[in-house]
Amino acid sequence: MVELLFWLDIFGIIVFSFSGALMAGRYKLDPFGVVVLASVTAIGGGTIRDVILQTPVFWLEKTYYLYVVLATALLTIVLIREPKRIPKRFLLIADALGLALFAVLGTQKSLDLGAATPVAIVLGTITGVAGGMIRDVLCNVIPMILRQEIYALAAMLGGGLFVLLEYLAWSESHALIVSISAALLLRLAAIYWHVSLPAFHIPDSEDTK
Amino acid sequence: MVELLFWLDIFGIIVFSFSGALMAGRYKLDPFGVVVLASVTAIGGGTIRDVILQTPVFWLEKTYYLYVVLATALLTIVLIREPKRIPKRFLLIADALGLALFAVLGTQKSLDLGAATPVAIVLGTITGVAGGMIRDVLCNVIPMILRQEIYALAAMLGGGLFVLLEYLAWSESHALIVSISAALLLRLAAIYWHVSLPAFHIPDSEDTK
Amino acid sequence: MVELLFWLDIFGIIVFSFSGALMAGRYKLDPFGVVVLASVTAIGGGTIRDVILQTPVFWLEKTYYLYVVLATALLTIVLIREPKRIPKRFLLIADALGLALFAVLGTQKSLDLGAATPVAIVLGTITGVAGGMIRDVLCNVIPMILRQEIYALAAMLGGGLFVLLEYLAWSESHALIVSISAALLLRLAAIYWHVSLPAFHIPDSEDTK
Repeated sequence: MVELLFWLDIFGIIVFSFSGALMAGRYKLDPFGVVVLASVTAIGGGTIRDVILQTPVFWLEKTYYLYVVLATALLTIVLIREPKRIPKRFLLIADALGLALFAVLGTQKSLDLGAATPVAIVLGTITGVAGGMIRDVLCNVIPMILRQEIYALAAMLGGGLFVLLEYLAWSESHALIVSISAALLLRLAAIYWHVSLPAFHIPDSEDTK
Repeated sequence: MVELLFWLDIFGIIVFSFSGALMAGRYKLDPFGVVVLASVTAIGGGTIRDVILQTPVFWLEKTYYLYVVLATALLTIVLIREPKRIPKRFLLIADALGLALFAVLGTQKSLDLGAATPVAIVLGTITGVAGGMIRDVLCNVIPMILRQEIYALAAMLGGGLFVLLEYLAWSESHALIVSISAALLLRLAAIYWHVSLPAFHIPDSEDTK
Repeated sequence: MVELLFWLDIFGIIVFSFSGALMAGRYKLDPFGVVVLASVTAIGGGTIRDVILQTPVFWLEKTYYLYVVLATALLTIVLIREPKRIPKRFLLIADALGLALFAVLGTQKSLDLGAATPVAIVLGTITGVAGGMIRDVLCNVIPMILRQEIYALAAMLGGGLFVLLEYLAWSESHALIVSISAALLLRLAAIYWHVSLPAFHIPDSEDTK
């Protein structure tokens, strides 16, 4: 069980680092800039979660997280060094994977540390979305969460489903896998078919400058 | 007294959630995105204050704050569901109310936890301005605090006046109400008459790229 | 020794406050807005470092830091009150100084508090770059770290060199001065000659929207 948690977590770090490095490639950053953008994307969400929970920040003691980010960023540069055209979808899919993994894993860790159910779901959502948010804000791009396709819903659904399955006394590994898959599928479907929920829209009024 | 503090705090959460939800309406977010933007606006400032003070973050134990944000965001969607034109001023006024309330309440909480006077005023200002700042940065809009009208001054004045009135041995409830009102009136006057302090301006020089 | 650390730290606060105030001058902020932008630039990085380390945030007890920021911001306004044209380079040079100082001082503080070597270098980098990053994000400008010239490298090199020199049993004051100078010279050279490392670049693909 602990092993499954560990590998899912590492996998989340890898996919988010990859998404940060890909984004860096659009902005023509040097290798050190790529490492910085990969880092904030991969460890930003979990750092904010741990700081809010006032529990030791995960990468302070487990420094291997930093090496995983570094290795992923450098490998991305090396493997994609030829200016081949990378489908934009790669970034979206890597981001969706990270979102689903971290939303559920963040909820699990928060529950483990004694957070109440709604707090755990909120902290899970923060873990899943904050890293990508910082990546996008730094690049002066409107964060994915603020563009119509199902994004916040996928994160909240992942965490919420995990809480429900735990409550129904599923084994933790099954609960993890099912809720991560559900969040991922929902987000991928939204990307693929451009599905979105009805939007809340206030048209600009006359007195808008 | 505790009751007054409680209701002012809840009122601040409501007006900031409302401002976040209104902003979301301009970006055509789905309901879950609206909830996320309302949340960061309403609880962002207080979260940063508590994290800096290293005191438990207020919504971790008092989960009703999260329900207030959720209810406000959903009510905003339902009540403003008809694409009526909403005056832009609504957002500015809600933001001004939140600013005045949280700047003073943040100063009060910081003093209560033993912060020195200048630190308390700075933390009050952070409480008042940070939520709206994050809301604006996420929407890729220059934060209100960086646009000429009296904004930072209103926050600092609210906190500073509260400290002064406490020092003059006013009752806490009077000190709260007077300093919140002063900050609010100053900001509303600035919005209404487009008053602003003389700006500090450095023209672009030749060697600017 | 403690005295050297103290003065380097104060000097870093001054140059970053100055850079924030200069940036504010481009956006025509009022004096209170100038103070806010100077503050986030000067104390943002160290605040994030301390919050992640879960050690008391440096300006909570040493309130003189706040007065140094305030004085620098107001002095900048007074001295540059004539709309003279200020070379853009001033901002870049002040930022480079702050970057070099804080990257090394942040690494030193983190090591002092028991952080592992890679963690200390990461936290040093955060201390050096985060304040300027927040300054730029608030002004809706792409942060300097995401624009080709050697920036992240200078920060990491400063912290890394400091660790190496300490390991080689240099005296702390020599290690500080040499590593700060190295980081600063590297960054200034990059600014002056527009040197940059080979960039990682992924051209937009067909399916990019």
